[in-house]
Amino acid sequence: MIKLNLKYLNKQVDTKNVFDEYQEKCKKIHDSFKTKKFPGSEMTGWMTYPNVIDESMIENMISISKEWIKDKNIKNVLLIGIGGSFIGVKAAIDMCLPYFNREINFYYANNISSSYLTDLYKKLSEKTNLAIIVVSKSGTTLEPALALRMFYKLLLEKYGSEGASERVVAITDANKGTLLKLANKYNWRTFPIPDDVGGRFSVVSPVGLFPCAVAGIDIKSMINGFKDALKDTSNASISKNSAYQYAILRNYLHKKMKKDVEVFVTYEPQLFYFSEHLKQLFAESEGKNSKGILPIVAPMTTDLHSVGQYLQDGKKIFFETSLLLNKPMFDTKLSSFFEDDDGLSFVNNKTVFEINNVAAVSTIEAHSIEGNVPNIVLEIDEMNPYNFGYMYSWFSKALAMSARILGVNPFNQPGVENYKNRMFAKLKK
Amino acid sequence: MIKLNLKYLNKQVDTKNVFDEYQEKCKKIHDSFKTKKFPGSEMTGWMTYPNVIDESMIENMISISKEWIKDKNIKNVLLIGIGGSFIGVKAAIDMCLPYFNREINFYYANNISSSYLTDLYKKLSEKTNLAIIVVSKSGTTLEPALALRMFYKLLLEKYGSEGASERVVAITDANKGTLLKLANKYNWRTFPIPDDVGGRFSVVSPVGLFPCAVAGIDIKSMINGFKDALKDTSNASISKNSAYQYAILRNYLHKKMKKDVEVFVTYEPQLFYFSEHLKQLFAESEGKNSKGILPIVAPMTTDLHSVGQYLQDGKKIFFETSLLLNKPMFDTKLSSFFEDDDGLSFVNNKTVFEINNVAAVSTIEAHSIEGNVPNIVLEIDEMNPYNFGYMYSWFSKALAMSARILGVNPFNQPGVENYKNRMFAKLKK
Repeated sequence: MIKLNLKYLNKQVDTKNVFDEYQEKCKKIHDSFKTKKFPGSEMTGWMTYPNVIDESMIENMISISKEWIKDKNIKNVLLIGIGGSFIGVKAAIDMCLPYFNREINFYYANNISSSYLTDLYKKLSEKTNLAIIVVSKSGTTLEPALALRMFYKLLLEKYGSEGASERVVAITDANKGTLLKLANKYNWRTFPIPDDVGGRFSVVSPVGLFPCAVAGIDIKSMINGFKDALKDTSNASISKNSAYQYAILRNYLHKKMKKDVEVFVTYEPQLFYFSEHLKQLFAESEGKNSKGILPIVAPMTTDLHSVGQYLQDGKKIFFETSLLLNKPMFDTKLSSFFEDDDGLSFVNNKTVFEINNVAAVSTIEAHSIEGNVPNIVLEIDEMNPYNFGYMYSWFSKALAMSARILGVNPFNQPGVENYKNRMFAKLKK
Repeated sequence: MIKLNLKYLNKQVDTKNVFDEYQEKCKKIHDSFKTKKFPGSEMTGWMTYPNVIDESMIENMISISKEWIKDKNIKNVLLIGIGGSFIGVKAAIDMCLPYFNREINFYYANNISSSYLTDLYKKLSEKTNLAIIVVSKSGTTLEPALALRMFYKLLLEKYGSEGASERVVAITDANKGTLLKLANKYNWRTFPIPDDVGGRFSVVSPVGLFPCAVAGIDIKSMINGFKDALKDTSNASISKNSAYQYAILRNYLHKKMKKDVEVFVTYEPQLFYFSEHLKQLFAESEGKNSKGILPIVAPMTTDLHSVGQYLQDGKKIFFETSLLLNKPMFDTKLSSFFEDDDGLSFVNNKTVFEINNVAAVSTIEAHSIEGNVPNIVLEIDEMNPYNFGYMYSWFSKALAMSARILGVNPFNQPGVENYKNRMFAKLKK
């Protein structure tokens, strides 16, 4: 569940008036999500996918992950993927599992740095019990294609041809493409990426679900989260749809209050990659035609000692969207120590979570009151698979509305072709 | 060494004219760094510190790190610190050491998340051979003070009172403060934080040098880097001072071309925390009096599949500063594989570094030519301690000039008091 808390925004924005002003436009866009006659409407499969997902496929994912973990004793998984196939998956894994103590170690091949990949190769070559998940719709995206070349070789060396085949799952196009061809030739198991679900919306599909299953996350609970958020955001009336409220407020802050940057603020390291997912979601969906709010991230309290000074006192080109947690995954109660000669006697009998929460609320107050920075606060119950699913689909719906209000196609990313064209031209020369 | 490459900027900016225009102002500020009569001049110790550093202290640092690693077989170090004591140190360690395969594992207590700290406690309680470095000038900053409470208890449980004492080094004020008092009482060894060196400049001091020595980095070479950069940036003539050129160009892009955001772009995961250091350096130094360029980071090629779309096609409120590497720490040569049925035959006989470099140059071209985004490129020889030191002091000098041109005190951070006042008031109630 997500609760939208507008308490800290009401100083700067008459939210009720804003909602009234946007209601008509919002209703039209909302209806178009059903009639599906707008640029990009062919890519709205994520709005229905969780409700029609093939249950036997889910069982198959769970069964392969059990085979890997129980029968093959897999301890280390290399996820080869980029964009949503990396960021979205890491967002889910980090939010749902403890930060340090995990059953399965995930490694990520998410770049083409020779120093990183070569050193990763060395690291994984010393590991037993390794498997690879490779995610690519076409199989020709450079980062995953290169990493697959490098690391499948490692599996072959370790386990031979048959053993290697059993330790790769490819998530790719159901019917065509280079990766599917390789999977068929080398006898890897596959799961399909739906045609109508883009990368930054794809955690609802096998792209997210299979790696999460392998990581030990309850993916059925996550799917329930997707479903409930889609249901709870299906009302055209802004007053009854928190995702649309958020979408409209960020458009208002951008258009009327000239805020060009949105800072996604988190207070839990386990939520940091969710904010990275939001950065991708909004940047790729809205950053086109010389439009869009530039999304950035600020992991607190770490960044209070970095970009914090700017957020308090710098040029006011931004607003903040803060994710607040109501209940921690773990907590520690502090007791007297050092005869309290560290000057911290005031923390005795408090828990670390209580203190972090005081820091969070104090920061939001200081930024919004002394700093006059508009703050949208989103409260989350706790970090678990259901809430990950809920947040993921809630933000997808908010984005779809927000980008349509801005007047862009939320579901394409034409700008990424420029560097690719230049790059492939140089490489193929 | 850093080479400033203005090739991609010359399309948008007549750099020679800009330098002429700023020369007089630049000279005045440059001279004031020597006469030291400006707001903040009492905090310019980092400009001279590397040249007057106590050599016996350096030997003492190296000797303690040998004792820890050789005699006590320390394998895991918890660094308790925040701001520059975390970001700057991690920037150094990541740049100078392989990403994955390291002799000493560093863990960071750099926040007050209960879920993170409680899980870290569990992780470290299972580790043998643990030591703690705690960094705080006063000892009352909340994050390190809380973490010290939690984790010193762990050392006591593991090693008893004497063993624990031997496994803590405190880096703090030489003469006063809570942490110094604790260190004296519990018999921890200490190194001093100079009074005239602020957190975001402090890697030149024991704050950075001792953790780097423990990590196995050649700190004498790093110090030579600091020294050489300070020397190479000591010329008042802009045409002979690349750090001032960079400082002036960013001011010009901000003031004349209305760019409010600077994107620090890296193409090596090992350089990512250096860009985080730059984020802190510029945000804390310039983000005040409603002024400043908002610094953000974009680790490539990962972020080409995230914020890349925005950088290519979004609202043009930003310019880019890209760090390019000339020589990798490691590399892998690609050979034919899969009978090249992955469609990648064009990478055969290329190295991964060559390909990453093509991606980097293609991105800079696409952003600056098709995207019309001003791009400042900084070329670095290779990732080693000397070049870390050189870059660190080079950017410190650039920042000092840049902030003074902007008209702010580069060396204070008054805005961080707002949330602290609120937080301590609530906690002490």
